[in-house]
Amino acid sequence: MRIVALAGGIGAGKFLRGLASNVPPEQVTVIVNTADDMVINGLHVSPDLDSVTYWLGDVMDRDRGWGRRDETFRAMEELRRFDEDFAWFNLGDLDLATHLLRTRLLAEGVPLSHVAARIAERFGIVPRILPASDDPVTTRVTVVSMGRELDLHFQEYWVRRHAQDEVRAIRYEGATQARPAPGVLESIADAEAIIICPSNPVASVGPILAIRGVREALEERRDVVVGVSPIVGGAPLAGMADKLMPVVGLEVSALGAALVYEGLLAGWVVDEADRGLAPKIEEIVGVRVVVTDTIMRNDEVAAALARSALDLLGRTR
Amino acid sequence: MRIVALAGGIGAGKFLRGLASNVPPEQVTVIVNTADDMVINGLHVSPDLDSVTYWLGDVMDRDRGWGRRDETFRAMEELRRFDEDFAWFNLGDLDLATHLLRTRLLAEGVPLSHVAARIAERFGIVPRILPASDDPVTTRVTVVSMGRELDLHFQEYWVRRHAQDEVRAIRYEGATQARPAPGVLESIADAEAIIICPSNPVASVGPILAIRGVREALEERRDVVVGVSPIVGGAPLAGMADKLMPVVGLEVSALGAALVYEGLLAGWVVDEADRGLAPKIEEIVGVRVVVTDTIMRNDEVAAALARSALDLLGRTR
Repeated sequence: MRIVALAGGIGAGKFLRGLASNVPPEQVTVIVNTADDMVINGLHVSPDLDSVTYWLGDVMDRDRGWGRRDETFRAMEELRRFDEDFAWFNLGDLDLATHLLRTRLLAEGVPLSHVAARIAERFGIVPRILPASDDPVTTRVTVVSMGRELDLHFQEYWVRRHAQDEVRAIRYEGATQARPAPGVLESIADAEAIIICPSNPVASVGPILAIRGVREALEERRDVVVGVSPIVGGAPLAGMADKLMPVVGLEVSALGAALVYEGLLAGWVVDEADRGLAPKIEEIVGVRVVVTDTIMRNDEVAAALARSALDLLGRTR
Repeated sequence: MRIVALAGGIGAGKFLRGLASNVPPEQVTVIVNTADDMVINGLHVSPDLDSVTYWLGDVMDRDRGWGRRDETFRAMEELRRFDEDFAWFNLGDLDLATHLLRTRLLAEGVPLSHVAARIAERFGIVPRILPASDDPVTTRVTVVSMGRELDLHFQEYWVRRHAQDEVRAIRYEGATQARPAPGVLESIADAEAIIICPSNPVASVGPILAIRGVREALEERRDVVVGVSPIVGGAPLAGMADKLMPVVGLEVSALGAALVYEGLLAGWVVDEADRGLAPKIEEIVGVRVVVTDTIMRNDEVAAALARSALDLLGRTR
């Protein structure tokens, strides 16, 4: 069964571990958001690609969520001694190796998709990990801070300023010019199931959909697309999606998240906490909804959740 | 007493610790070779600047000679797992912070001399550390390997290939176009003593002299210039100067090293091992020679050596 997953960071990483244990992993293609990528202190950092890679490669720090297990932070602690301002995006010493490799290869002209494959190979990952695009796409956030409008990189808004600013607008810079990475449209066209992971719909999945041709390709495959709500009981499980969804006119709920994907979905998976919303979502979004435990405390829950998503797809046909 | 020192890496670092303990450190300006600098894995590395900085900042690893004390190598060990070929230039985790800072600031357009000052400040260094130039100067080595001519960056020849290749030629790429960094010519013109540290005359001091105007500025100050031989008993104390000196027609000896600086020197300090050469050097090079212990086993020997160099200068006048 050829499966495509659209993925952001940590939530996707957890979910994908469950998915890859349910199906032959070589049948899985993961299309990953790159709009959080940034160059910081000279290094090209790809937070979502790395989260997915580290989770699938079983080298993630499960408690912290991001980064590598058994990590140390000597380089960044030392950089902080030079300048506090340069160390707001924390990178572990092991993690730095990934960024050094990526930065070097990109500078040599290797496309990001090849770099991602090479990094995945190092961790023995069988599913195919594809950046959504080899071209630059960047989520920019317009905020108001002390009466002034600021245009921030998503990571500056999110990590550096802790999503404290009032957000006026979000845009995916470069998305309409970006070409999907080789294999993205092909794998979508060829998939027997397409899963939208429980990722931030605005910050993580939104940029993927904004890339030229991706939304259209998914629309054509609507009958095999199922999504997992990242919103449980009116709040995101992780991250700060609640800050961004209202900016684009979305209610912070399992319904609001489903509406991002209106016209793209056959099925939608919501948490037990949102059982009451299920009929309304079915009616408004026009999808089949299944209710299950979506709080991925461990790999077993993630595996059951992935199974529910795939089963739902079976039942929608 | 305003003192200028021309410096390469480790030998210079040891010597400068001795010098800075002999004179008011705020009177010392160190002009450092940058022709070993390279961009590797996206990072701008300045080996000689860092050696001088770490030695003067008392954070060097005295046994290893290069890099920081209490260092770990987690990032590079991990990078080596990606690709052995990417990790030939070993950078410690603490050391990485220096390269991240430098890479970032250079990318922002900050001149290398400002970056060097900022790094020196972090380590509480009082002497002024100046790169010889803010413009790129690169030592390139033409070697013959298995019948083929290769054009290598100095570090590729030296560190990656362990100086095993037969060297045909050495050139300082960019040197004649490079402008001395702000303060270089001024400090030379203004110095009461100028010391050429015991550094590789071809790989470390040669590139400094090749920068536009530096040799001429030194010639005018010949009466206050004293050098310390990096060659003891016909071999370099550290490094592989013996491989490079013959390429430019120099005998690997305290005499050969002095000849590099012919026309620039008032005095020359040689080791006890080379006492026999002293009269010949005085005659051929036309300098006053002093014989002393130049093997800098510890700060005390380095301090005595620096004192001998300054005293010699006093006696030449």
